[in-house]
Amino acid sequence: MRISELSRRSGVSNATIKFYLREGLLPAGRATAATQAEYSEQHLRRLRLIRALIGVRGLTVQQTRDVLGAVSEYGTDLHQVLGLVLGARPVDTGAGAESEDGDGDGDEKEPGRSEVDELVAEMGWEISPHSAAQSVIAETLETMRSLGADYGWRSLVPYARIAEETAVLDLDQLKEEEDLLERAERAILLTILLEPALLALRRLAQENESAKRHSR
Amino acid sequence: MRISELSRRSGVSNATIKFYLREGLLPAGRATAATQAEYSEQHLRRLRLIRALIGVRGLTVQQTRDVLGAVSEYGTDLHQVLGLVLGARPVDTGAGAESEDGDGDGDEKEPGRSEVDELVAEMGWEISPHSAAQSVIAETLETMRSLGADYGWRSLVPYARIAEETAVLDLDQLKEEEDLLERAERAILLTILLEPALLALRRLAQENESAKRHSR
Repeated sequence: MRISELSRRSGVSNATIKFYLREGLLPAGRATAATQAEYSEQHLRRLRLIRALIGVRGLTVQQTRDVLGAVSEYGTDLHQVLGLVLGARPVDTGAGAESEDGDGDGDEKEPGRSEVDELVAEMGWEISPHSAAQSVIAETLETMRSLGADYGWRSLVPYARIAEETAVLDLDQLKEEEDLLERAERAILLTILLEPALLALRRLAQENESAKRHSR
Repeated sequence: MRISELSRRSGVSNATIKFYLREGLLPAGRATAATQAEYSEQHLRRLRLIRALIGVRGLTVQQTRDVLGAVSEYGTDLHQVLGLVLGARPVDTGAGAESEDGDGDGDEKEPGRSEVDELVAEMGWEISPHSAAQSVIAETLETMRSLGADYGWRSLVPYARIAEETAVLDLDQLKEEEDLLERAERAILLTILLEPALLALRRLAQENESAKRHSR
């Protein structure tokens, strides 16, 4: 299809599609003339995925490039792709994220970090040593305590066990896809795009649990 | 304590404290002279909570005011507070959130919404009918399908069951506090501040589960 049809079917403007092409998020079409190119269904699917990552989940162009790059490069090795997808996207910590790579606070970070190491050891998890996700956990524990809550890594153990159940569900859903590239794309969907829905389900379940305990 | 000591102990600048006072996030101190006021330990704790909500979780001043307002107003009725906290804070959907209150797309939203109703009915959840969390779930389902994934509300049922387990844990932790205002504050911590850590735990658990299945 021509770029105009790609635009119509995806709902993404010509100018934005050209921007994604220039930025290398979308691979070039097959050139059919000096100023014309032909795009495939794969381009359409890729374009929708880009829109979901940038428009729905708020990733930057660079983060999106890293995620998509991981899929193209390691599409046949799902564990590699998952590792890169999990690492490429820092967990959303809101506006406070800029404090993450300060270099003057090495001393303060160590206690938090080693707490996370204890949690990981308790769970017996086989994971890479220093990921963004681990920093997020360390920071959360420190924030809770700065607010006077008596909160340590042991408080998170029951949540970590629930996270294990979630991960089994997540990985089970990847088995269905035959095509490895599709599996990799689906891993992105399940990891990044499902996050807001999982938090939303927790809120609804809290509301229901609260209703059960406190009223009527 | 004076404002200068409040600033020193909280790490928040005088100017920012005055801004929070003007915006009504922080209650006024006890006036001791025409231009002086005395602040208490409760002010300090409130200030730290504000910093966590705005600085760490990225809430706006208005959202923070809503959350804190719920605590002051309904501090003795935990279910009310939880309801307002859960409702006041739209679940983080990243940059795409502005599409939520468009009014021209009523037709498109209905199918997604009724899917969520089916999920809620299947779970037997007793919750208020139209919350931000339900819109997030409807939007996620639509995004997944626009990307070609075969994803409906039934796909979320196992995740909803896990969310129930999480909610039981969450509510159990609120029982410890005697002081009702402290319980309400703790509800905020558990609901909003714990979210990034729960997503981070899921990522680590996925990495571990993937390692178990794909390597060695």
